[in-house]
Amino acid sequence: MSETTTTDLYEVTMALSYLRERMTKPATFSCFVRQLPPDRGFLVCAGVESALSYLSRYRVGLDDAREFAEALGRPVHDLMPLVGTRFTGTVRAAPEGRVVLAGEPLMEVTAPLPQAQLVETCVLNHLSHQTAVASKCVRCVLAARGHAVVDFSLRRTHGTAAGLQVARLAALTGFAGTSNVATARALNFPAVGTMAHSYIEAFENEEAAFIAFARCHPGPVTLLVDTYDTEAGVAAAARVLRKLDRADGSAVRLDSGDLKKLSFRTRAILDAAGLPQVRIVASGGLDEFAVHDLVSAGAPIDVYAVGTRVGVSADAPYLDSAYKLVEYAGRPVMKLSSAKVTAPGRKQVFRRPGCADVIGLADEPPPAGSAPLLETVMRRGMRCTSPPPLEDSRRRLAVEVAQLPAAAREIRSPEPVRATVSEPLAALTAHVRQRIEHEVFGTPREAHQDHVSG
Amino acid sequence: MSETTTTDLYEVTMALSYLRERMTKPATFSCFVRQLPPDRGFLVCAGVESALSYLSRYRVGLDDAREFAEALGRPVHDLMPLVGTRFTGTVRAAPEGRVVLAGEPLMEVTAPLPQAQLVETCVLNHLSHQTAVASKCVRCVLAARGHAVVDFSLRRTHGTAAGLQVARLAALTGFAGTSNVATARALNFPAVGTMAHSYIEAFENEEAAFIAFARCHPGPVTLLVDTYDTEAGVAAAARVLRKLDRADGSAVRLDSGDLKKLSFRTRAILDAAGLPQVRIVASGGLDEFAVHDLVSAGAPIDVYAVGTRVGVSADAPYLDSAYKLVEYAGRPVMKLSSAKVTAPGRKQVFRRPGCADVIGLADEPPPAGSAPLLETVMRRGMRCTSPPPLEDSRRRLAVEVAQLPAAAREIRSPEPVRATVSEPLAALTAHVRQRIEHEVFGTPREAHQDHVSG
Repeated sequence: MSETTTTDLYEVTMALSYLRERMTKPATFSCFVRQLPPDRGFLVCAGVESALSYLSRYRVGLDDAREFAEALGRPVHDLMPLVGTRFTGTVRAAPEGRVVLAGEPLMEVTAPLPQAQLVETCVLNHLSHQTAVASKCVRCVLAARGHAVVDFSLRRTHGTAAGLQVARLAALTGFAGTSNVATARALNFPAVGTMAHSYIEAFENEEAAFIAFARCHPGPVTLLVDTYDTEAGVAAAARVLRKLDRADGSAVRLDSGDLKKLSFRTRAILDAAGLPQVRIVASGGLDEFAVHDLVSAGAPIDVYAVGTRVGVSADAPYLDSAYKLVEYAGRPVMKLSSAKVTAPGRKQVFRRPGCADVIGLADEPPPAGSAPLLETVMRRGMRCTSPPPLEDSRRRLAVEVAQLPAAAREIRSPEPVRATVSEPLAALTAHVRQRIEHEVFGTPREAHQDHVSG
Repeated sequence: MSETTTTDLYEVTMALSYLRERMTKPATFSCFVRQLPPDRGFLVCAGVESALSYLSRYRVGLDDAREFAEALGRPVHDLMPLVGTRFTGTVRAAPEGRVVLAGEPLMEVTAPLPQAQLVETCVLNHLSHQTAVASKCVRCVLAARGHAVVDFSLRRTHGTAAGLQVARLAALTGFAGTSNVATARALNFPAVGTMAHSYIEAFENEEAAFIAFARCHPGPVTLLVDTYDTEAGVAAAARVLRKLDRADGSAVRLDSGDLKKLSFRTRAILDAAGLPQVRIVASGGLDEFAVHDLVSAGAPIDVYAVGTRVGVSADAPYLDSAYKLVEYAGRPVMKLSSAKVTAPGRKQVFRRPGCADVIGLADEPPPAGSAPLLETVMRRGMRCTSPPPLEDSRRRLAVEVAQLPAAAREIRSPEPVRATVSEPLAALTAHVRQRIEHEVFGTPREAHQDHVSG
């Protein structure tokens, strides 16, 4: 399977038709999220870097043409016009790790129409999945209010490739570490881990397991205390840490039960054992909602290990994302069908502090005090900027999130920040709607309240 | 990033400790799903084949050891005991595409303890994700009651690798095709596709777009009719199909709005145009619930294209899966902590017609009229069976699902089929609990009602 055939068949049938019709003028597609999921006050743009890598590598080879021909039940000859196609277009995108709002382009792709169409499926996939996960991750960091959050999701992400991305997005959004060794090493990000229940069970009893673990691993250790009975496990861990003089930097992990109640009991047992420096790690089905409740209750938990629910963005496992044609051959276009109206034209997001954004046209003058969000990152199919260091993106995101209205940062029922639409974009939208209604229906239809996006 | 470092760090710390303690006797880990998600009456086992491929390839190289050492902040020398590790164990598994129930092992891995531990993260990832998706897919096929279902999910799966798996599982569970060219070709499965709204918008009007598409693509075509106004779009499609004499085998696609109402209107317009043979494809946010409602309402839809919600298993994007140690060095083990009790010992699922299953011990005599579900698929780290042809698995799954109790096949609020536990397994569970309570606490605790699984 090649990366090029990893696409929806219709991209190929459309591209062939465009070539046959000589419709190869520049087209601009805008990728945006129409509506935020419930419990999201904002999104964090992600997937741009891997989408750009994909575009850089894109090439239709003869083998790909053969596969397309077989899929279509046509002779390979018919597919020859596609062979040799590379992506030679211009890409403007919001940098990874910037806040984005409903209707704001994450990326705009301008290229000869067949090219811009062929890459749709994969571009949308990269941006959609990664933006969903990054937006979930940053909420965990918000919920933890300064406590450390680490990623334990690899075992239940949608394939291991997804797990590698989740760990990267955890690093981008301010997590303190990941259990995922490959990503941790690739990003020079802390790898973290403790032990499994099976480890304890393989020994005669908990104390023997703790001692063996500490013997093997010098320095701080994290001991899992809930295999049989949590309070007994904490007491055993305390005995071992004292006996071996390994308390400094060490921790115990709670992975089941009533984490609030158990964390208070655990803290009390550790303190009574003279081990106030031993920290408490909590895990087991945690997400930003659970972390928020624990932090709000003052639970004495030092590190929150979030896993599955965050790695699959369980409450919003997909985004209402779109890759829409907004301009072809210099002519702005839009779609009118119910509830999915898109705004025409190449766009820019003019960001003012607190993400009081204006969505406007790419070539209109920026409103006072605003800075453009979309940057030109690819020209003639080649990267023209370097991706910023992860550390810079993480810092910038933290600042940007801190400046959002408090209501948008709520964990439960946040109020989404909404971008406004510039006068020139609103005027163009009305104009294109009129033009299409005239062309398609011969007459304007009843007045519509446009839900402008993209 | 190597596949071997794509793992949770704790697998490595545990394996090192096991080696140091010379705990290298055979361990058996059981991978199972503790509880079904809401709206699942049964699961479909999947991910076995890719998990076995992973195990066949597994190897800790020197480069991996270096990465592990860096992740742990230890000298590479300390990691040398792991170098050269391969998976040399035995694997028993339910074949892909068989029905599985809560608590039933999907796979049991028996290998020297460090090996069996090191592979945990990836084995769990493969089985967990793919079983979740296959279980969602088969429900779409059930909901469609004989109408064709096709997969359009690639654009919003969790990465493109996940999308390739979704298409494969769609084929396994009885879909009629996928938009995903790579998987379609790899499996000799029909690739399907139509056109995007952008295609229509790139032309002066719908009719011009339809004509151009038909001109490029001989044979049946599927025309997207909802870009501007659905009824006008259907009328335009009807004119083009008649004019070009291309109605036979062709279809129109509805992708937005009230699909029930629009499908009836569309059917009426097509019939009135003398085109009863033109079929209707519906798409746009469909899942098994929406398909069920449309089919139940008698909507004249011929093909249901399901996408995002199915590809990410939106209502159950993860399973409550576990990879639990059940035996070490011939000694059955279990975990007692709250709500997560696991049953000890190597197991077998004895299947009787209708999935009236008994979970028992691997070496107990099978109940009358039952057949074992788990097969030995790997010995000494090598595959010892060939994966069955996809077509055979699909046929067998269809038969197995048809024989399930009707209540388990309901789309809304199904009643899960529950396996019973054999006498020998129940006796062993009670015995091991007593032994652990004696070892860990010195005395049995209050009587428990075991929730036996795995």
